[in-house]
Amino acid sequence: MNHSGLFNNIVKKKTFLCVGLDSEFEKIPSFLLKFKDPVFEFNRRIIDATHKYAVACKPNIAFYESSGADGWRSLEATVKYIKKKYPDIFIIADAKRGDIGNTSKMYAKAFLENMAFDAITVAPYMGEDSITPFLAYDGKWVVLLALTSNKGADDFQYHNEDGIRLFERVISVSRKWGTIDNLMYVIGATRADQFNDIRRIIPEHFLLVPGVGAQGGSLREVAKYGMTNKCGLLVNSSRSIIYADNSKNFDNTAGEKAMEIQQEMEQYLAEKNLI
Amino acid sequence: MNHSGLFNNIVKKKTFLCVGLDSEFEKIPSFLLKFKDPVFEFNRRIIDATHKYAVACKPNIAFYESSGADGWRSLEATVKYIKKKYPDIFIIADAKRGDIGNTSKMYAKAFLENMAFDAITVAPYMGEDSITPFLAYDGKWVVLLALTSNKGADDFQYHNEDGIRLFERVISVSRKWGTIDNLMYVIGATRADQFNDIRRIIPEHFLLVPGVGAQGGSLREVAKYGMTNKCGLLVNSSRSIIYADNSKNFDNTAGEKAMEIQQEMEQYLAEKNLI
Repeated sequence: MNHSGLFNNIVKKKTFLCVGLDSEFEKIPSFLLKFKDPVFEFNRRIIDATHKYAVACKPNIAFYESSGADGWRSLEATVKYIKKKYPDIFIIADAKRGDIGNTSKMYAKAFLENMAFDAITVAPYMGEDSITPFLAYDGKWVVLLALTSNKGADDFQYHNEDGIRLFERVISVSRKWGTIDNLMYVIGATRADQFNDIRRIIPEHFLLVPGVGAQGGSLREVAKYGMTNKCGLLVNSSRSIIYADNSKNFDNTAGEKAMEIQQEMEQYLAEKNLI
Repeated sequence: MNHSGLFNNIVKKKTFLCVGLDSEFEKIPSFLLKFKDPVFEFNRRIIDATHKYAVACKPNIAFYESSGADGWRSLEATVKYIKKKYPDIFIIADAKRGDIGNTSKMYAKAFLENMAFDAITVAPYMGEDSITPFLAYDGKWVVLLALTSNKGADDFQYHNEDGIRLFERVISVSRKWGTIDNLMYVIGATRADQFNDIRRIIPEHFLLVPGVGAQGGSLREVAKYGMTNKCGLLVNSSRSIIYADNSKNFDNTAGEKAMEIQQEMEQYLAEKNLI
């Protein structure tokens, strides 16, 4: 899927929601534990209930790795299920990998080739040769960390050389490694005050925006300052959708929560005359 | 294991070698393919042949993830085998993880709790709350990326605010998050010209140094500029040991290569009067 493909899905579905699958064995409703693969069963029902209101989903790889090989099986089964049943859903591996070239190549193989994710989040610290192996796959995306939603973003991401902060340098240097069709950036919703500066460097690129919901970012602010005339936003929500309800009815509640966000997003898309 | 424990092992074994297990299904000797878990079988034989000449080993997680759930089983089996048979070997998960707090916590659980690694490499970009969850385990270590051995290190790690380069800021800020007993840093062997500046900030911390061998760094330079009076170095070699020979005799050759490095290391330890 390229930049236009993503935008077309956004227009068609009137949403730019990404559903975060931070699926934790200890947190899923207990009645699911009787299934052979409870985490897959949880994910399957979450996606069945939310896919109409979302254009993307984002399994958070840490939550699967914490269950070892079994966790990987749940992850593999989840991606396979979504790819088959909802081929229009853009699937992002939230993995935050990045290593020397021959190692990044193996991570790219794991996520973009073997598991057929559409995209993977990558950390920029090690520079160009740590990132380009992920860009070698046609139609696949790198989602590069730029300005993150957590408190620790203040420690290094604002390191300022002659008025250029590190996150700005990451964006301006790395945008030459890819195109608007295979490179997007993570910008935290809690950093809405920086969207203007960021849009001056990358007026068209998609941004993946975490931090709305449990982390306190405002969807209205993100849309106001970050939206382009091709939307250019994927806004992620994880915990406030998938853990909204711990009963047997969790999937319906997740669907309702996703629909609420979709309706707010529809309003912002309409205000911008994109739908 | 703490700082003294590591140093004591170095003195006892007269080596500060870390054997990198970048074990790739496609590269291991073909006669191993008849085994149920060829990658584990490869690792087992490499460790049996090299453990006398090393104080640490470092599975590179990408190489296991690229085989999916089966790769995780090989990894789990490898760590379990080494922990049981060679409890003095310090095992580092070369994973380069790092995410918001609740996610880093899950990565820490995966590597430091479930698999009982002694240490994990972590990327600093997301700051303090992405790193402290890994420091919550008694006796376990964070190995934080500071100045890496690859070309891409030049892209961001030298970003310079008022004379302080990013890698220096990463070191000077992060050293307050841990101690010399649970925090060490990745400094590439190809960056030996920077060891003096780094040792001014952290005169005692251990450094994990990749880049000797296939990447071209010099062990003599690393020892000359990086060694402290408690050694303070773990130098990694992967490909030049584990892939030195592709025959049925690969493990003996790996042992010989490791011994050659150990002998050079013994010389540097003696020159520094540490043994």
